[in-house]
Amino acid sequence: MKKLDLLYEGKAKRVYETEDETILIVSYKDDATAFNGLKKGTIEDKGSVNNRVSNYLMKVLEEQGIPTHYVQELSHRETAVKKVKIIPLEVIVRNTAAGSLAKRLGLSEGTNLKRTVLEYCYKNDELGDPMINTYHIEAMELATKGELEIINEYAMQINTVLKEYFSRIGIQLVDFKLEFGKTKEGQVILADEISPDTCRLWDKATGEKLDKDRFRRDLGQVEVAYQEILNRVFNSFDSLQEQWRPKHVER
Amino acid sequence: MKKLDLLYEGKAKRVYETEDETILIVSYKDDATAFNGLKKGTIEDKGSVNNRVSNYLMKVLEEQGIPTHYVQELSHRETAVKKVKIIPLEVIVRNTAAGSLAKRLGLSEGTNLKRTVLEYCYKNDELGDPMINTYHIEAMELATKGELEIINEYAMQINTVLKEYFSRIGIQLVDFKLEFGKTKEGQVILADEISPDTCRLWDKATGEKLDKDRFRRDLGQVEVAYQEILNRVFNSFDSLQEQWRPKHVER
Repeated sequence: MKKLDLLYEGKAKRVYETEDETILIVSYKDDATAFNGLKKGTIEDKGSVNNRVSNYLMKVLEEQGIPTHYVQELSHRETAVKKVKIIPLEVIVRNTAAGSLAKRLGLSEGTNLKRTVLEYCYKNDELGDPMINTYHIEAMELATKGELEIINEYAMQINTVLKEYFSRIGIQLVDFKLEFGKTKEGQVILADEISPDTCRLWDKATGEKLDKDRFRRDLGQVEVAYQEILNRVFNSFDSLQEQWRPKHVER
Repeated sequence: MKKLDLLYEGKAKRVYETEDETILIVSYKDDATAFNGLKKGTIEDKGSVNNRVSNYLMKVLEEQGIPTHYVQELSHRETAVKKVKIIPLEVIVRNTAAGSLAKRLGLSEGTNLKRTVLEYCYKNDELGDPMINTYHIEAMELATKGELEIINEYAMQINTVLKEYFSRIGIQLVDFKLEFGKTKEGQVILADEISPDTCRLWDKATGEKLDKDRFRRDLGQVEVAYQEILNRVFNSFDSLQEQWRPKHVER
């Protein structure tokens, strides 16, 4: 599969068309931005870590019945994905208070939430990706009521799967951001990425942050944290495969 | 009925206990504040206008089956109300884009919304009354799922009644803020006030703002606007009573 025209360049990824009009190639960059682009930098090998981690997690989710845009990993930085029209929402799933939620509600970071919290932000750089609710989404016609119900259901299922997955590799899944897209046929599927750029991941034993907050908050050891996530995901591969392999398969 | 101890003094009202432990007396002030208390001033006779307008609207809503805290108007400034525990939410109902919604979503003021929008803010001065969603409300245990369903239903019903009412007196109900409380028995009822302080009211013919935005935005003629609302509400009284009187009553 070959990259053709550059379709879009974002803060962390380039997206190319291919000869197959239903398939795009995503190429992950090492560029890092935060605070709606106000802070800029580079995290060495971030593109490679995020691409590989995201692909791995998308495969895990597919196995659990969540449709995703993942098609095939082409290299450490590049992946073929299904072409979708991105629904302009950031869907944020939160298990523990951190970041903007902690600030907004006056909670200490690390406070366990009494229920999983879902938030929607309107993907709009000019407006600073404002938080909105389902009424705004319907009034602005960003998604239909039916699409929102599907997104809501998938987001909760994804949380259940990922929380358990990360817990097994010694990581607390604090919160994460999802984006969904619609295929030409109108199917809603998970798109974008799931990586240390889009999740808050804390070491269960030490509480150490292993995600983009190290960059946002100048905590240092950013690359080390990203590599640690990559290592845990891939070192866990065999033992996890073991557990997920259907029971009747000969070992 | 006599005022006993001052229970609470807010930005626009004082609340007193009475000899009846289920009843409070609310006394409306002329003090005006905006932007979470950053802007301060006085609007002459505002207390009287708001008290009388709010009582009138509460009675209209009671007739339509919405339970409210209204008991009895004691004077132009004072009203006896049922004692409730205020649920710490500002419930905002919007028919037309204005104020923070217009800014947040990048819409021009006056844009008609394709559906009624409901917003919740967490009543917390220190945090600046942040916008939250139903997940936050449940996670923070500000209200139960059942209470939220009732609040949601009442808010929509109130909008239907008030939108039609204001339209008949030549006013466009752009948006408004509600607060609900719980009685000792656990019943959720409408509390606080409905007035030019808590609604955006635009003259249907001229688009002129007849509400607190005249104060917030230094538009002048603030007192005139409040009096205009009072006059329209009370001049409409007879003709409206006529329409709301059951059909079988002899005229």
